[in-house]
Amino acid sequence: MKTELENVKPKEIETRSFEIITEELGDRKLIPGTELIVKRCIHTSADFDYAENLCFSEHAVEKAIDAIKNGACIVTDTQMAKAGINKKALAKYGGEVFCFMSDEDVAFAAKSQGTTRAVASMDKAASMGKPLIFAIGNAPTALVRLYELIREGKISPYLIIGVPVGFVNVVQSKEMIMETEVPYIVAKGRKGGSNIAACICNALLYMIDNERDYWK
Amino acid sequence: MKTELENVKPKEIETRSFEIITEELGDRKLIPGTELIVKRCIHTSADFDYAENLCFSEHAVEKAIDAIKNGACIVTDTQMAKAGINKKALAKYGGEVFCFMSDEDVAFAAKSQGTTRAVASMDKAASMGKPLIFAIGNAPTALVRLYELIREGKISPYLIIGVPVGFVNVVQSKEMIMETEVPYIVAKGRKGGSNIAACICNALLYMIDNERDYWK
Repeated sequence: MKTELENVKPKEIETRSFEIITEELGDRKLIPGTELIVKRCIHTSADFDYAENLCFSEHAVEKAIDAIKNGACIVTDTQMAKAGINKKALAKYGGEVFCFMSDEDVAFAAKSQGTTRAVASMDKAASMGKPLIFAIGNAPTALVRLYELIREGKISPYLIIGVPVGFVNVVQSKEMIMETEVPYIVAKGRKGGSNIAACICNALLYMIDNERDYWK
Repeated sequence: MKTELENVKPKEIETRSFEIITEELGDRKLIPGTELIVKRCIHTSADFDYAENLCFSEHAVEKAIDAIKNGACIVTDTQMAKAGINKKALAKYGGEVFCFMSDEDVAFAAKSQGTTRAVASMDKAASMGKPLIFAIGNAPTALVRLYELIREGKISPYLIIGVPVGFVNVVQSKEMIMETEVPYIVAKGRKGGSNIAACICNALLYMIDNERDYWK
């Protein structure tokens, strides 16, 4: 075998990865209290752009952690993000993860209103009457609809994780969320994704647990 | 509302996104026959690095498409990738998607052998006796185990999509796969992810369907 593998035990891979990320970030300044989220996004993507593009409204992390501890549920716009979120960790505080994208009523509403299923999903979430965190990794139309629902006073999320990825209305939809009074974590620009949405949720959960060495 | 949205109908968002990607790629040379895969990875990540880092063994795309048409199944190393792969499109040709990471026998095997669940998952896949495509978006240890199983003659995949992301043994594990005789699509370097693994599977499926305008 020509290729030499680094001898790291399975359990230590994550810790070693965070060490490398911290080393390579060097003396780049991160917003105090957000470091673990930024590093986890880099860990998930191997993309150091997340050290620059992640924006946090004031006290967003503390507010999100409080909401989770008080049983907030997470609504996401992809089955992928739902699959990626640590549902067991969330359930400890009473929360659940929802994704309505494959629901028949959502498909029907989207078709009859000539809109996207993401928009219809946000409407469905607004009618739940639960304390909610939104984790949007795919559809800018979901963020635009959340903006409208917030402006209309129909929803008041505890946090919006606004990290859709892409080329059409993605940048704009994120800016709209940043104009609201709702706590947000947004990846400015085109980048993001379901993986990033899930990873930010997990970072928040692991910050509460504080079980992992590299968090300390 | 300060922010101006581009007026693109839901159905046209993907087409418009691919136009923008094609424009921004400019005259960058992509390997003929791989363009749709490369562009879909950029579409999924908004990261143009995929125009540089994706490596294809000779005729990998044609071989993968043949395998899918002949009912190959896809084994992946995350529930996220499984959630993201278009299972309906794959089922048309008789294929299924498997992820063994949460299986009890896999957890047990990993624990008793002091290895990762990803390694135990690959062993389980090798014992299936099915024509397989592997889509590895997370665990370099899965690729290392596949390398060993191939060398031992215990498995002969139709394609390995080798796109784990990360900082420990990720680069090396990809190089190992590129040393084998097995057809591969590999994202050289640290980048990749479950989203990229799923997106490459879907790109292959959509190339067969050829339903989408921007593929033509």
